[in-house]
Formats: sequence, structure tokens, C-alpha cells
Amino acid sequence: MDTEHIQLAHGGGGQLTAELIEHVILPALSGVEAEASDVQQAGRLTDAASLDLAGGSVAFTTDSYVVKPLEFPGGNIGKLAVCGTINDLAVAGAVPKALSFALVLQEGLEMELLRRVLASAGRAAEKAGATVVTGDTKVVERDALDGIVINTAGVGEILPQAKLGFDRIADGDRIVLSGPLGEHGMAVMSMRQGLNFSAELESDCAAIHGLSCSLIERLGSAVKFMRDPTRGGLAATLVELSVGTGRDIEIVESAIPVNRTALAAAEMLGLDLLTVANEGKLVAVIDAEAADEAVAILANQEIASRAAVVGTVGQVRQPDAPALVEMVTRVGGRRVVQMPYGQQLPRIC
Amino acid sequence: MDTEHIQLAHGGGGQLTAELIEHVILPALSGVEAEASDVQQAGRLTDAASLDLAGGSVAFTTDSYVVKPLEFPGGNIGKLAVCGTINDLAVAGAVPKALSFALVLQEGLEMELLRRVLASAGRAAEKAGATVVTGDTKVVERDALDGIVINTAGVGEILPQAKLGFDRIADGDRIVLSGPLGEHGMAVMSMRQGLNFSAELESDCAAIHGLSCSLIERLGSAVKFMRDPTRGGLAATLVELSVGTGRDIEIVESAIPVNRTALAAAEMLGLDLLTVANEGKLVAVIDAEAADEAVAILANQEIASRAAVVGTVGQVRQPDAPALVEMVTRVGGRRVVQMPYGQQLPRIC
Repeated sequence: MDTEHIQLAHGGGGQLTAELIEHVILPALSGVEAEASDVQQAGRLTDAASLDLAGGSVAFTTDSYVVKPLEFPGGNIGKLAVCGTINDLAVAGAVPKALSFALVLQEGLEMELLRRVLASAGRAAEKAGATVVTGDTKVVERDALDGIVINTAGVGEILPQAKLGFDRIADGDRIVLSGPLGEHGMAVMSMRQGLNFSAELESDCAAIHGLSCSLIERLGSAVKFMRDPTRGGLAATLVELSVGTGRDIEIVESAIPVNRTALAAAEMLGLDLLTVANEGKLVAVIDAEAADEAVAILANQEIASRAAVVGTVGQVRQPDAPALVEMVTRVGGRRVVQMPYGQQLPRIC
Repeated sequence: MDTEHIQLAHGGGGQLTAELIEHVILPALSGVEAEASDVQQAGRLTDAASLDLAGGSVAFTTDSYVVKPLEFPGGNIGKLAVCGTINDLAVAGAVPKALSFALVLQEGLEMELLRRVLASAGRAAEKAGATVVTGDTKVVERDALDGIVINTAGVGEILPQAKLGFDRIADGDRIVLSGPLGEHGMAVMSMRQGLNFSAELESDCAAIHGLSCSLIERLGSAVKFMRDPTRGGLAATLVELSVGTGRDIEIVESAIPVNRTALAAAEMLGLDLLTVANEGKLVAVIDAEAADEAVAILANQEIASRAAVVGTVGQVRQPDAPALVEMVTRVGGRRVVQMPYGQQLPRIC
């Protein structure tokens, strides 16, 4: 493999992304070289940071969006950029307060397309109760960029009841998932591949802070960890969780809610839905005793009506072996769930 | 003019950028259509916002960087991205605390180049006492991007003594400038144009919060407004100030410090240094009685050793005419300083 040049897989959210962050980005920006296997360390940089600022706890996060096509069933790059950053704040246990919105535009871009993207971003922010307070606009030559890059950063106030962290996770905790997997990734990929059912398949692009805040407000410290499974899908989230806690995780295939159109698309393209990106889903680690209540709280909101307990932490079978994520399949077998290496197709978000 | 497609000048920091922000971006993202002439309104979106968060005053800002070439005398895109966002916090009267750092990389980018850019960014952040706390990495196809886009956002704590705003500016206030103009823009443009003295001309790329914080800590409310004159240069900053306050501004050419190499480059390329980008300069509006002390405070720091009073607010000659920025030239004439319409060359920052 060519290690001296950036490859598409370096942006896929899987193993190569983690390695780039650990070995190249983190050492330069924070002066600390992380352990090769310490995906948790990479997670610390890529997700929302918690700051003690002005006497309170503030969450701060950023993401750049390069999705192609710019418009897709269920959303566009503007809505995605707003929801994605809100979601990073949400899973940090924060109430989103303010967003930045920075555009890099290709010379020659249609003004009407830009208007649609911005209108969609504005509606998403308003719906979420977050205000766009600062921005930036750059334009580059026609041949220097394909379309639009949007960066959003966000700040939010961390709920005082939020007690989240790998260190709080214990054997027996349940993995709760808010709905079916892969709708965003398959909607975008189906459109790019010209699959004829692509119009039926909508991205799940949505702000999930209503879900995360409800969980924390109602269940407090029984909520131990939250994540939105974007690039790399549920697989990347669970492997990160397993590596970060040193605990096995077992999920049950038959418990995972399924969108049949997304599944059909994934099968046609030879993909595993566990590794496909979501943009409106929540994964939460919940104390076993509160797991059913968590599902009920989530299912009360439309975007999580199919929430379910899909797995358990700590089914250790080999005490001295590295921690694993395993799935009990529909046919009763077991398979290891691995961190996706690169990604199926670039520019999913 | 084609108004239905984005043009390079929409990103130039001049009149067209202001119009795009006012008529297309702000209405969509904030629901408020600004007045056509209300450049101040655009300024509110493009610079650091002040948030009441967690019981304190927090400044929040963002900028995306698309400079080409990626490396230039005096810096590179990484150093620029860190200093630029620190500077936006600085001129809001804030102490920079935390930065986000989001990369969009072209497939095939040399890893060594990326390492240099990141190392430079890391050093700049460390030197400024700001911590990179969150980030993101995306990779796009070889033909979809030329090089690197970096977005940085920043949060800082606003100094309690800071009392900044157009509404505080009065006739007689002085315009203080921290050093010679156009070094960043001319360093980048000379390199792109292959001018043979390009190596002698270094970008002024530097963090200026040491300047801004010293002024506020020492002079308090005598500091009325601060800005870093980047895209559009000093001209754009002063026109914004004039429009925002409804007051005339007079600057004196002979009082403005000059870098002779930057001036020679500007003359060769037919440019006005007043409109060329700076990345390490501070413009401050200071109460007349404190102006000399402000210059002394600035000149005490190496990057502002040539600080000077360069103008005055409120030399109104025609009470009913729109506010103007005028410059008394070296030969004793007067000329109007206008908002640059587009920009000379794209991708200066």
C-alpha cells in the first residue's frame, strides 16, 4: 500500500482514518502520539470536546461535509451539515446552542442550488432551536473543487445530569439503537449508482438531540455513552466502544430494526449495512435496568419509533483475548464485527 | 453580469461577498433579510459572535482556508488556519481558548506535505496558548479538489473589560494600525506570479491576540473597535467601519507604515496595497486621548514594532452626503477609498 500519499480510504471513518488521526494528525496538533490501537484516542479528537469555559461545561465540535450528490432523497448537504454537527453535540450530552456555517463554493455553482441548500440548512437549524451565529464564504476556481464544501462547528451546553464516558460502562449494560441502519449511506449510494428504487429510499438525515436530551433528562446516569453511527456505521461505533472499554460486545441480528429497501440496496451493492453511514440514528449504552425504559422514551419520538435493545456489553468468552464485537446471526451462527478498513464509496457525508 | 452563478469575486471579501451574504446567505440561515447597504449586518455574520453561554461571555468564530499555494514564504495553510481564527477571536476582545481543525484532503496528496502543514498548525496553536480540541478528516477524489481545505472554528472568553462596538465610536477617535500592509497577499501573489523577489517577501501570518489583549487590558473602554484586515485589506475594514457607524474616516497615506518589497510587488501587479490581504495585522479604533499609548503598547511587541496612528474618525465635510473613507495622499491630494468589488486573485487565504 502507498503510505506516502493520501488515499480515499483515509477519509472513510474506518481503520485507515483512525491511523491517520493517531499517527499524523494528533501528534502534530496535540503533541501526543497515541497508541496504534487506541481508537479511543482518535475518538477524543473527532467528536465533541468538553470545555470548562466561562464557568460552565461547554461542548464544542466540528465536521466538514463533502457529500455527493449535493442533493439526495431526504436532504441535501446543507441539512446534513446542520444535523450532523447538532448530532455530535447531542451525543456529548449537550443542548445545541450555536452553529457556525462556512462555505467553500465552486466558481460557476448555480445560485438556485445554493439557495436550496441554504434554505434547507436554515430550516434544520430553526427546527432544532440552534442559531447560526457566525460564518465564512470562500470561492475557488471551477477546476479546483467539485461543488460545495460546508463546515459547521457547534457549541452547546452540557446537561448537568450527563455522566457519559467509556469508564462508566460495565458488563451487562445494554446497547440501544434508535432505528434501522444504513438509510443515509444507501440513499446516497443508490442515487450515485443509478439504482431504480433510489427515490423510495430516503436518507435518515435528522437532528437527534431530542432523543439524547430526553434520555439524559429522564434516565440521568443510567445513560453511559452515546454516539451517532455515521461514517463506518454501527460497526465502527461498536468496535470503538469495545476497544475503548476493553470489553466484548454482543449484538443480535434479529433485534436490529431493518429498512427493507436499504437492505435490498446493500445486498445489490455487496455491502454490509452494519458498516453503512447513518445521519439520524442514536446508539446508547444504557444500564440494563433502564434499557426498556430507554427504548420506550426513544420510541415516543417519530424518528426513533423503531428503537430497540440490540445488544449487550461484556459477554466475555475468552478472558485473555482482545475484546471483540460479535453478532449472533439470524441463522444462529456468530460472526465477528470488524472496524471497516476504508469505505465503500467516498463522499457519503 | 451573470447573477445566477457563483463567481470568484463572490469570495473576495468585497462588495460582492457582502451582497451574497446579505441577500442569499443571511436570509436563509437567520431568517432576516439585511438592507442592501448594511455591510455591518454582513459583518455580524462573518466575524466572531458573542454568546451568553454557561453563565459567561464566549466568542465563537469560523473560517475556511483555501490558500494556494499551500506553502508560501512565512507560512502555510496550517499556520494560516490557526492564526486566522485566533485573530477573529482576538478582535472580538476574547482570549482564544480552544480550536477545532477540520481537513478536507485531495486523494493523492503527499503525506509529507500534510505533515508539514499539521506541524506548522500545531506550533502556531501552542505558541498562542490555544488547544486544538476537536477535528474532522474527509478525503475527496483526485479530480474533486485541488489540494487541501482547512476549516478552523474557535471559542474564546471575552475579556470583561472589552467594550467594543460600532455604537461606541465617536468623531475624533483615532485609527491605529499595527504595521505595514499587504505582506500576506503580496507574498502569496508574488509566488503565484513567479516574481523573482518572492522569496524576500514573507507573509505576516501571525496570531495577534497578544496585541488585542494588551490593548484591552491596559486601555479598557478606550478601545472601541478592532478588526484584522484580511480579505479586502484595510480598505474593506475602513469602509465597513464607515458604513456601520455612518461616519467619515480620513487616513493619511504618509502615516501608514510601508514594506517596500510588498509595495514594489503591488506596483508591478497594478494593485492597491490598501485592498490587499493581511494575516497578522490589527486595526483598532481608539479614543483620541489614548491613541499614543495604544501605539506604544503595540510597538512594544515585535509583530507590531511599526504601529502607528494612521487616521481619524469623523472628518465630515458634507453633512448630508453618505459617509466616506478618504485618504490624504503623499502628494497632498485626496482620494476616496472604496470597498474592493471582487478581488485581484482568488485563494489568498
